[in-house]
Amino acid sequence: MRTIVVYDVEEKRVQKVLKFLRRYLNWVQNSVFEGEITYTEFKEIKQGLKKIIKPETDSVIFYKLKDAPYEKEVLGVEKSNVTNLY
Amino acid sequence: MRTIVVYDVEEKRVQKVLKFLRRYLNWVQNSVFEGEITYTEFKEIKQGLKKIIKPETDSVIFYKLKDAPYEKEVLGVEKSNVTNLY
Repeated sequence: MRTIVVYDVEEKRVQKVLKFLRRYLNWVQNSVFEGEITYTEFKEIKQGLKKIIKPETDSVIFYKLKDAPYEKEVLGVEKSNVTNLY
Repeated sequence: MRTIVVYDVEEKRVQKVLKFLRRYLNWVQNSVFEGEITYTEFKEIKQGLKKIIKPETDSVIFYKLKDAPYEKEVLGVEKSNVTNLY
């Protein structure tokens, strides 16, 4: 499934997240990755990131673009509550 | 149309971009906005950003989630060529 990943993590963990996501996805720009992944890979990515990030302060958002409306999943803290999309 | 905007601009222009995008969209996390905008608003956003950013160094990506497959438009430099999605 086509997936966009955006992350907002503390400076000291940026390199780790970057290096980890590169294994699965394509770097698009600062803090943004994109790619085609399987559901198994998606689960692996979430598990891997859970070991790296600090959920209290870091945020990683996955946009899974399967159909319209798309699905969105947040790993870690949801820094902003976007309500007008639902 | 549902739109995700991610930007990667030089430090000195970050505040301007942030302030401008807030007029139209919801801040999601560092450098990421989301929202429901009309096509007219989308054109306004592009025009406004063109006046703020430096296309040689800054990058703004719009993910317009209308149907699957989604459309993607890049304003400014495309820092990474993502080819496996097309």
